[in-house]
Amino acid sequence: MSDPVLHPLDRATRLVRNDDGSLSGRTEPAYANMVGPFGGVTAATMLNAALAHPERLGDPIALTVNYAGPLVDGEFTIDARPVRTNRSTQHWSITAAQDDGVATTATAVFALRRQTWASTEAGFPQVPPADSLQRLHADVMPQWTRRYDMRFVRGGWPDPTKPEHELDSVSTLWIRDDPPRPLDFLSLAAISDIFFPRVMIRRPRWVPAGTVSLTTYFHADAKQLAAEGERPVLGTARASHFGLGYHDQSAEIWSEGGALLATSHQIVYYKE
Amino acid sequence: MSDPVLHPLDRATRLVRNDDGSLSGRTEPAYANMVGPFGGVTAATMLNAALAHPERLGDPIALTVNYAGPLVDGEFTIDARPVRTNRSTQHWSITAAQDDGVATTATAVFALRRQTWASTEAGFPQVPPADSLQRLHADVMPQWTRRYDMRFVRGGWPDPTKPEHELDSVSTLWIRDDPPRPLDFLSLAAISDIFFPRVMIRRPRWVPAGTVSLTTYFHADAKQLAAEGERPVLGTARASHFGLGYHDQSAEIWSEGGALLATSHQIVYYKE
Repeated sequence: MSDPVLHPLDRATRLVRNDDGSLSGRTEPAYANMVGPFGGVTAATMLNAALAHPERLGDPIALTVNYAGPLVDGEFTIDARPVRTNRSTQHWSITAAQDDGVATTATAVFALRRQTWASTEAGFPQVPPADSLQRLHADVMPQWTRRYDMRFVRGGWPDPTKPEHELDSVSTLWIRDDPPRPLDFLSLAAISDIFFPRVMIRRPRWVPAGTVSLTTYFHADAKQLAAEGERPVLGTARASHFGLGYHDQSAEIWSEGGALLATSHQIVYYKE
Repeated sequence: MSDPVLHPLDRATRLVRNDDGSLSGRTEPAYANMVGPFGGVTAATMLNAALAHPERLGDPIALTVNYAGPLVDGEFTIDARPVRTNRSTQHWSITAAQDDGVATTATAVFALRRQTWASTEAGFPQVPPADSLQRLHADVMPQWTRRYDMRFVRGGWPDPTKPEHELDSVSTLWIRDDPPRPLDFLSLAAISDIFFPRVMIRRPRWVPAGTVSLTTYFHADAKQLAAEGERPVLGTARASHFGLGYHDQSAEIWSEGGALLATSHQIVYYKE
């Protein structure tokens, strides 16, 4: 069933509860990647299985998603279990499967947030406002890239103009859902995987590559995210090491006003 | 059963396979924390459940450990399942339980590593050699800290001498097992959790705090780790954000010769 009122991200992450407690979902063409769905939307869907659970406690603080096998276009089933609920934290084990077995596994930690001493040690990047930058033309890229208004400050791709000695894996860009959508944990989880595999930025050229495991830490609560509304977020990502077929990458996602909303880390497979 | 020949880390991570395929382990007093065992050794034990499995493929590349509930001193049971095995990768789901339920959950990704294009973008810190530094006196600290020869370059704790405007959460230190032990995935997994909660370094004062979820990416294969032998590794750690009861922290672990062996990330609960 398609619902023209829903934002495509809400269609993509929508789950229906079955009689046995499992959840059924369906991949959404609007977020298609080269093969199967955009991994960020898969991460958001796994998170939604816990967010939408009747026993859910508090807000997510950590989400790890492991892309175990291909998720093919069509239906999938998710099993989400709160394996331990404490006074102020809750731990989840989440598995997505299709006919040929387990496609994706995840763990999530939820917590009741409360005011404490606070400090941001990372620095908000010095950048021009989103309005002053050109949007990435994603015509030749997979469908999901058109669901984001991406405006690169640096590290766009492809960018073969840089001399080799200046190459690094850093990208900094403004990001907004397209169509616009109020920020929440689902969209933030998806955005945490928006950064192209760093190996392509670093070399720079197209290389077969894909995320294997993604971990996102949420530094904002639901109220803080809701207050952002449809404003763009600023993302910055970089790798620390490439070798033996895998590289890591770390990202920060900031509010327009300079609050650190999430930090995210992943390990990426690459060939050659 | 105690075995005087085994290194305490090998005693601590030792698992016995039961008839039903589950594994039994026992906490090791040599790695006692204030309550229960040092989380790094718990992480190593979870990893060992996959490493020692007869169906294990390749070397670990990613390990996420969620500290769901207290692990109390004594026996525990681990269930480790390879949920999906592909041609060159294998995904694990691992759960440790005690009488009162699930204590720890983990996911791990293993892979057959192969030579590819390689580059390290993070910079090896400029530091004096380990021999030229004083070892941390851990007399008043929990037992596990005595299992490590830690020599701080900066960010030791407690260090109330710094003026407030110079405070940050960065620590850099040389680390070696005590007694010395050849480096492998078990010891590297444990070392990835050796960095005190950053909130204590940043403020700087003792604050109730504990790791909630830990993710480590391994950038070296078994052969490269074995070649390190008993040489110290260099660790550096920092936080990016503290707030609403949780902070993140990221660490790099380098070989003495400047190879990046692992990067590690965690989200830490803190009070006040």
